[in-house]
Amino acid sequence: MSTDINRSWQMSGFGLSRLRPVDGSIPAFGARDLLVRTRAVSLNYKDRMIVDGVLIPDLAFPFVPTSDAVGELVAVGSDVSRFKVGQRVLGQVIADWPDGDAPPVLHTHTLGSSLPGMLSEYVIFGEDAAVLAPASLSDAEAATLPIAALTAWFALVEATKPVPGETVLIQGTGGVSLFALQFAAAFGLRAIVTSSTDDKLARAKELGAWQVINYREQPAWDEAARELTDGAGVRHVLEMVGGDNARRSLNALGADGRLTVIGLLGGMELSFPIMPFMRNRITVQGISVGHRRAFERMNQAIEALGIKPVIDRVFGFDEVPQAFEHLEKGPFGKIVITTA
Amino acid sequence: MSTDINRSWQMSGFGLSRLRPVDGSIPAFGARDLLVRTRAVSLNYKDRMIVDGVLIPDLAFPFVPTSDAVGELVAVGSDVSRFKVGQRVLGQVIADWPDGDAPPVLHTHTLGSSLPGMLSEYVIFGEDAAVLAPASLSDAEAATLPIAALTAWFALVEATKPVPGETVLIQGTGGVSLFALQFAAAFGLRAIVTSSTDDKLARAKELGAWQVINYREQPAWDEAARELTDGAGVRHVLEMVGGDNARRSLNALGADGRLTVIGLLGGMELSFPIMPFMRNRITVQGISVGHRRAFERMNQAIEALGIKPVIDRVFGFDEVPQAFEHLEKGPFGKIVITTA
Amino acid sequence: MSTDINRSWQMSGFGLSRLRPVDGSIPAFGARDLLVRTRAVSLNYKDRMIVDGVLIPDLAFPFVPTSDAVGELVAVGSDVSRFKVGQRVLGQVIADWPDGDAPPVLHTHTLGSSLPGMLSEYVIFGEDAAVLAPASLSDAEAATLPIAALTAWFALVEATKPVPGETVLIQGTGGVSLFALQFAAAFGLRAIVTSSTDDKLARAKELGAWQVINYREQPAWDEAARELTDGAGVRHVLEMVGGDNARRSLNALGADGRLTVIGLLGGMELSFPIMPFMRNRITVQGISVGHRRAFERMNQAIEALGIKPVIDRVFGFDEVPQAFEHLEKGPFGKIVITTA
Amino acid sequence: MSTDINRSWQMSGFGLSRLRPVDGSIPAFGARDLLVRTRAVSLNYKDRMIVDGVLIPDLAFPFVPTSDAVGELVAVGSDVSRFKVGQRVLGQVIADWPDGDAPPVLHTHTLGSSLPGMLSEYVIFGEDAAVLAPASLSDAEAATLPIAALTAWFALVEATKPVPGETVLIQGTGGVSLFALQFAAAFGLRAIVTSSTDDKLARAKELGAWQVINYREQPAWDEAARELTDGAGVRHVLEMVGGDNARRSLNALGADGRLTVIGLLGGMELSFPIMPFMRNRITVQGISVGHRRAFERMNQAIEALGIKPVIDRVFGFDEVPQAFEHLEKGPFGKIVITTA
Repeated sequence: MSTDINRSWQMSGFGLSRLRPVDGSIPAFGARDLLVRTRAVSLNYKDRMIVDGVLIPDLAFPFVPTSDAVGELVAVGSDVSRFKVGQRVLGQVIADWPDGDAPPVLHTHTLGSSLPGMLSEYVIFGEDAAVLAPASLSDAEAATLPIAALTAWFALVEATKPVPGETVLIQGTGGVSLFALQFAAAFGLRAIVTSSTDDKLARAKELGAWQVINYREQPAWDEAARELTDGAGVRHVLEMVGGDNARRSLNALGADGRLTVIGLLGGMELSFPIMPFMRNRITVQGISVGHRRAFERMNQAIEALGIKPVIDRVFGFDEVPQAFEHLEKGPFGKIVITTA
Repeated sequence: MSTDINRSWQMSGFGLSRLRPVDGSIPAFGARDLLVRTRAVSLNYKDRMIVDGVLIPDLAFPFVPTSDAVGELVAVGSDVSRFKVGQRVLGQVIADWPDGDAPPVLHTHTLGSSLPGMLSEYVIFGEDAAVLAPASLSDAEAATLPIAALTAWFALVEATKPVPGETVLIQGTGGVSLFALQFAAAFGLRAIVTSSTDDKLARAKELGAWQVINYREQPAWDEAARELTDGAGVRHVLEMVGGDNARRSLNALGADGRLTVIGLLGGMELSFPIMPFMRNRITVQGISVGHRRAFERMNQAIEALGIKPVIDRVFGFDEVPQAFEHLEKGPFGKIVITTA
Repeated sequence: MSTDINRSWQMSGFGLSRLRPVDGSIPAFGARDLLVRTRAVSLNYKDRMIVDGVLIPDLAFPFVPTSDAVGELVAVGSDVSRFKVGQRVLGQVIADWPDGDAPPVLHTHTLGSSLPGMLSEYVIFGEDAAVLAPASLSDAEAATLPIAALTAWFALVEATKPVPGETVLIQGTGGVSLFALQFAAAFGLRAIVTSSTDDKLARAKELGAWQVINYREQPAWDEAARELTDGAGVRHVLEMVGGDNARRSLNALGADGRLTVIGLLGGMELSFPIMPFMRNRITVQGISVGHRRAFERMNQAIEALGIKPVIDRVFGFDEVPQAFEHLEKGPFGKIVITTA
Repeated sequence: MSTDINRSWQMSGFGLSRLRPVDGSIPAFGARDLLVRTRAVSLNYKDRMIVDGVLIPDLAFPFVPTSDAVGELVAVGSDVSRFKVGQRVLGQVIADWPDGDAPPVLHTHTLGSSLPGMLSEYVIFGEDAAVLAPASLSDAEAATLPIAALTAWFALVEATKPVPGETVLIQGTGGVSLFALQFAAAFGLRAIVTSSTDDKLARAKELGAWQVINYREQPAWDEAARELTDGAGVRHVLEMVGGDNARRSLNALGADGRLTVIGLLGGMELSFPIMPFMRNRITVQGISVGHRRAFERMNQAIEALGIKPVIDRVFGFDEVPQAFEHLEKGPFGKIVITTA
C-alpha cells in the first residue's frame, strides 16, 4: 500500500472489448472485513458469460468480473479474530453460506456477481467469507480452487457419500471435471472420463482415470459406460452439459444411481424418460459451488493428499483479454492470471 | 382347506372382459414359503394398466393380477422360523428387497407382475417377503398397505429426513396421496393438498391438510403454493403426474427443495428448466414402493399413531370387474375386494 | 431508551447472595449488532451452577448470568440486513454456530458464559446470532426456547432421524424433558416418561406421553421400559443424569439403539458394559444445545404445530433470587423472569 | 466329492487340546443352500476365545469353530438362483443380515457361533448368506475378509461418512487394524497407527500410515495424537481395546469426533468423563462386523483398488493347533489355514 492506487479490470459494458484496466482507489473495509492484496485470479466459464452479457443481463456498470482469487491479507477490520495480517487467503464465493443449508435466496452475496469481482490488486473479503489457502500450493494453483475445485468436492463428498470402489462418470476435461477426476482417484472411486480427443483422454489416464471414452468415436458413450460396468450402469454421473446429454447420462446410470447437475453448456433444459428414472430410483441433484466449511475440509484434503491443480496456462495481469480468449479453446484444466 | 379348490380371477388375455373367475388348485409351497388364505385385496391404478395391457405388454397368460393382499397363514414350509400358522400377514410386493438398497434389477420378483398376483383364495409368500398386519386394522384396511401406504411412507420417511414443521405438497386424493397426507399430519409436517374438487379438498382438510388448493380454480397452483409459504416455496413435492405438471412442481419448490417422483399419469417424460434447478439445489428422486424393513416400521407407526386407511369402497369377490371400473372414477382413497 | 439506565442483575462473586441488581449504562453496539430491550428471561439449571461457582470456577466479575432471553429490537448496527427495529428476537446461545458442524472450540462465544448473560434490560446480539421469536408464543413462552427447547429439538430431529412410531425414553420432567415430550408427541414418536411422582407422570400423560414409569416404585425402570416394548428395548434414550443411571439407559435400549447424552446431574462419568454395547450396535452421542439454523427450523415447527412451552412459574424482575431458589424444587417445566 | 468323507476339526470340549480332526459326512443341504468345498480358513481372536470357553460358555459339543472361509461351490439347492456351481464364494458371517439395520437379536444365525464353523472340507452357506470372492485375491487372501476386513470397512465406510483428508487413529496392527489402515490410505484418510514396536510401525508406514506412535515410548499416545493434529484432535478413533484405553481414545478426539468400538481385549467396561464427551459432541458407536451388501461393496472396492490383505502366516490343514498358538504371538496381519 505504498501508493493508494488499486488497478482493476473493469467492464464499462458487455463484450470483451469493453473490459479495460482502470486505476481506482483501495477499497474501504469494515470492522469484520479483510483487505487483501491479490496475487492470482482464475477464470471460470461463467466469467465469460458475464462479460458477454449472457448470464446477468441487468448487470450495473462499471463492474469488475471474476470470482476466484488468492491474496495476502494486508489489513483487517477492528473486530476480526479469525485471521491475521500476512496470511494467504482465498475468498468464499457464496459469501453468506458458512455451512449446512444454503441461504434461502442464493447469490445475494456472491463474489463476481452481486459483489465485486477479483480482477483487482486489492479486494475485500468478509471475515466469515474467507479461508486459508493450502500451504502446499503455489499462488497460481491456489487461485483455481474457489469455484472449480469446491464444486467438484461438493458433488463427490458433501452432497453424497463417497463409497470407495464405486464408479463415477465425469464429462470432459475442463476445470471442474479435472478436479473431480483427481478427487475421485484419491478417494478410491473408479472414474470414467469422456472427451472428444484421445490426447486429453491419455492425460486423464495419467491423472488417475480408471477408464476413458472418446465420445466422438463412441457417440453412444452411455452404452459404452454400461459395458465398462458389465452392464450394471455407473453409480454417479457428473452432468456438465445439460439438454439431450442428460438423457444419455440417465441411461448410463444403474440402480440407485445419482446424477449431479453442475454445468449447462449444452442446453437450458433437463429432460428424462420417467420410467427408467423411477425403476432405477434415480436421484438428480443440482449443485451450486458449496459452503465455507466444505472449502476448509477440501483444502485440508488437498494438502493431506498432495493434490496439485491442473493449470492449462498462466497469463500476466496485462493479458486479461488473451486469458478470456483462451478460455474458448477448450483448455485442459484452469486458466490463471497473476496479479502481483 | 376342507376342499382343494382355489378360486382365482385370471386374465386369459388383455382387457377387463378377459379377467374371469377360475377354479384352480391350492399352490404347492417350498421349505421357506408361507401358504396364505387371503381375506382382502386392494387395487392400485397400475393393476388396471396391467389388465389393459399398457404396463406389461409381453405378459404371459393365464395371469392373476393385483399385488396387495392380507390373509391368514394356513401352512408354513419346513424351514420357516419367522412366522406361525394363524398369523395375519401382508405380502412384501418387491419380494427380494429386504432392506437398504434395492436389488440391482428391480421387479424380477414382484407380486402381481413377475410373480403371480393376489386375486386368489390361496397365495404363496416367501418367508422373507411377508410382514405381520397391524393388529389395529380390519382386513379391508390392512389390504390397502402394501403399495399405496408403503410408497407414501418411503417418500416421506425413508428416502428423506422428515423435519417437523416443513411443508409438503401432495397432488390429488388417490390412495398414495391420502396416505401421504395422513402420515404428514401425524409427523408434524404441513401438508398442502391439491385437487380439482372442493368436496375432496374439504375431506382432505378433515384428514389434517394444512392448506388446500383447487387447481381447477387456480391452474397456477405452483404460484398459489409459493404464496402459502410467504414466497419461500415448499420443501417437498410428491409428484403424482409427470410431464408438464413436473415443471409446476419444480417452480413450487424453494431452496434445497425435494421433488419425489411417484406417479406418471400425465406423461412419460420429466422435464425442467435447468437454471432454477441448479440455483435452488433441487433434488429429484424416483421412488419404487419400498423394502420390507420400511414396511415393518410403517406398520408399527400406523398402529402406534392410530392411523386408519381411507377406503373409498369395498367390493365382494364376485364383483372384481365392478371394482376395476370404479378405479376409473377418481375414488377418494382405496378400493378393496374381500376374498373370504 | 427514554433514560440511559440499563438495570441488570450482576454477580460480584459466587453465591446467590452476591447476585444483585445494579444500574449500568446501555451497551454500545457494532455495525453488525442488534440492541435488544429484553422482555423475559428463562433459567436453566446450569445458570444455578454458574452462580454457585460450580461450572465456571474462573469466572471474571462482575458477571451477568443466564443465557435465554426474548426482547424487542430497539436499534441495529449500520451493516445489519437480516433484522429490523421493532422485531421480537431470541438470542442464539452458542453465538458462533450458524449451521452444520460446531466451531472447533465450543463456548468461546456463548451467551451467559464467555459472553455476558441476559439478566439486563438491554443486551446485545450479533446479527448472525439471533432469530425471530415465534409469533404464536407469549414473551414468557418464547423466553424458554434458546437452551431447553433447542437441546430437545437437536436431540430428536437434527442429531438423528426421527422415524415415526419409534420409541423414545425421556428421563424426568424438567425443561428439556418436557420439550422433548411435546416434540416426540407431535412427531409421531412414542414417548416413555420417567419420574418419581405420579402427579408429574399424570401431567406427562396429558402432554402426550405414550407410557410412564415411576422410578421410585420401579427402580429397575430399564426393565420396565423393555417390558413396555415387548422385550425389544427402546430405540432412543435421552440421558439427563449420567453416572450409573447411564447403565440402566444402555440396558433399556434395543438393537441399533441411540443414547443421547444431555444432562449430567447425577455424575461426571459415563460408563457401560462393553458387550451389550457392541452386540446391539449402540450409538452414544453428546449434545450441546444446537445451531442457529436448527433454532429457525424449530421455531417454524413450534408455530406450525401449535406447541406451547410448559412454564412452571413466572417471576418479576425484582424476584430473581426467588426464581433461582425455585429452580431447586424440581419444577415441572420452565421458570421465567419478566424483565419489562 | 469322489469320497463321502468330510474332514473337520471339532471341539469335544473347551481347550485347544480338545480340538481334534474327525472324519464326518458331507452335510445335507436345502433348496436354497450352497454346498461349498472350502479352500482356506482364516482365524480371528474370538475363535481362540471360543475354543478356550471364554466367549460362549454354554457351547454345545461337538462344535467346529471359526467363521471365515473361502471355497468352491460344488452343489446348489433346487431353488438357488444367485450362484452357480464352480464359483468361488465367501460366507456372510452374520447370516441373517442382508442390508440396512441388523436383525433385532444378533447372532442367532452366525457362522462359527450359533451356526457350525468353517474348519471342514465341506460347509453349507445359505444362498442369501454368501458373496463372490474378489477375483483379484488368492484363496488365502480371500479367506481373511469375512470378519476382519468387513469390520474395518463397516467402521470406516458404512457406519459413518468418510471425508477425505480427515484423520483416523488405528490401534495396533492386528487383522482388523491393518485392513482399516489399507482402506484409510486408499480412501484419502490420514491414518495414525499405534503399536508397541518400531518394526511394526515401520511396516505400517509402508502400508500407507500418515503418522505412527509407539505407545511404549509415548504412553500418553492420546496427547501425541493431538500434537500430530496441531492440537485439534483426531476425527475418528477405532477402539480395539476398551477399558481405560477408551479414556485416552476420547481424549485424542477433537470436536464432533467419533469413537468406533470394535475390540475389547483390555476390559469389559467402557467409561468416559462426561464433560469433554458433551463439549465435543462425541459419538461412540459399537460395531458388529456388517451386512452382506457391505461385504459386496467392499469386495468391489478391494478389487478396484488392488488392495492385498496382509497375511502373517499360512498353515496347513494338519497344523490347526499351531495356527491357534501363533494367534497369541501378536501377528502382523492375518493367520490362514489352507483346507484343500
